[in-house]
Amino acid sequence: MIRPLFRTRPEAMLKADASPVTIADRAAEQAMRAVLHARCPDCGIAGEEFGIDRPDAPWRWVLDPIDGTRAFLTGRPIFATLIALLHHDEPVLGVIDQPVTGERWLGVAGEATQFHGPFGGLPATRPCPALAAAELSATSPEMLGPHRPAWDRLAAQVRRVSWGGDAYAYGLLALGQIDLIAEADLKPWDWAALVPVIQGAGGRITDWSGAPLRADGDGRVLAVGDPALLPAAVAALAGG
Amino acid sequence: MIRPLFRTRPEAMLKADASPVTIADRAAEQAMRAVLHARCPDCGIAGEEFGIDRPDAPWRWVLDPIDGTRAFLTGRPIFATLIALLHHDEPVLGVIDQPVTGERWLGVAGEATQFHGPFGGLPATRPCPALAAAELSATSPEMLGPHRPAWDRLAAQVRRVSWGGDAYAYGLLALGQIDLIAEADLKPWDWAALVPVIQGAGGRITDWSGAPLRADGDGRVLAVGDPALLPAAVAALAGG
Repeated sequence: MIRPLFRTRPEAMLKADASPVTIADRAAEQAMRAVLHARCPDCGIAGEEFGIDRPDAPWRWVLDPIDGTRAFLTGRPIFATLIALLHHDEPVLGVIDQPVTGERWLGVAGEATQFHGPFGGLPATRPCPALAAAELSATSPEMLGPHRPAWDRLAAQVRRVSWGGDAYAYGLLALGQIDLIAEADLKPWDWAALVPVIQGAGGRITDWSGAPLRADGDGRVLAVGDPALLPAAVAALAGG
Repeated sequence: MIRPLFRTRPEAMLKADASPVTIADRAAEQAMRAVLHARCPDCGIAGEEFGIDRPDAPWRWVLDPIDGTRAFLTGRPIFATLIALLHHDEPVLGVIDQPVTGERWLGVAGEATQFHGPFGGLPATRPCPALAAAELSATSPEMLGPHRPAWDRLAAQVRRVSWGGDAYAYGLLALGQIDLIAEADLKPWDWAALVPVIQGAGGRITDWSGAPLRADGDGRVLAVGDPALLPAAVAALAGG
């Protein structure tokens, strides 16, 4: 549903509801809902485009068909389809899928993360106990909004910064390519699938205070490949 | 030479001369030099790692084995190998090659740009006569340095901004996925190969005043998919 619409060349100025990303988003969410409805009829399903089915079900799927709409719209093959399964609000399964490159990360609570794709990569974070050695990433300066000064404090202590990537960057953290991601303005469907993937690869994903992510949190997310990096990152963000 | 070193997992803290990007950079430049030396013995060759051979030759190859070292180092498959052929300082042939995905752009002065790759895309820029409709891109805020205020004036007038991409983003402009790129701190080997690719796809690439790029210029580069966009972009950058 997504791949045929990638790199189609729409007019520069289109109404939002006619853009290829919107068409792909809706078609992909409907396709996933149809599969889940048939195979898991008792599960809840929450998606950005078509709302929530059975919100009180103990098992709920959370879908984000295209995470990284700007990457999709500009032809960069680093957006992702995100699929999470929650058990009483806790993410127990997460998929990061790149439908154009064919890369896929699968995380299951308590198990080692799996990764398959044509470009190589092993699903294990790398040791990086000091901020001074860390590769930091964030999708865009704009998403940081009022949290930019705190983020800049963290960035001032790391080795290097790179931009772009959305959920795909968390996948790269799970491959030991990035050490640290600090972002703001994420919705639960943006991060739920990332939790089992990162934990199963040896990393940690929390809010900016180091506490577990919550659906009613403020949208700030901090991920580290090496858990030893977490206290220093939290301190830098807090101004410590 | 490059592909086997992509997504290898080095220690977080390595000396610069032992990093996989440095090893790949040198090996790829040597491989290209060997081919060009054998096939074009009278041509000059300039590369970042191994200097200039025959600098006074009328035909000179300019090589940048890995443009986008941060993308390479963080496992993002959107770095590029750049190959340009200059005739008396004028770029007459340019290649943007992504060795991991297998995408390749080929531009030849006076001819239509060619593009091949597994993810689709057609080598023609798209119409976008107004800044208000334009998709603007730049590799990173950091590269803009003292030119950030001028860039922000431009960004304030466009539809949307996306970050990351290096030379690959210019390839996406040549596919009609991005309308406008404004960057600073580029070296001649960063932009020489882009000139024939973008011109052959219907776009323009200039300095920030709209004048042709020169090897002794200040490193600021402006690319537009629709030539009609150039005066407004130049005016916005100049504060007009």
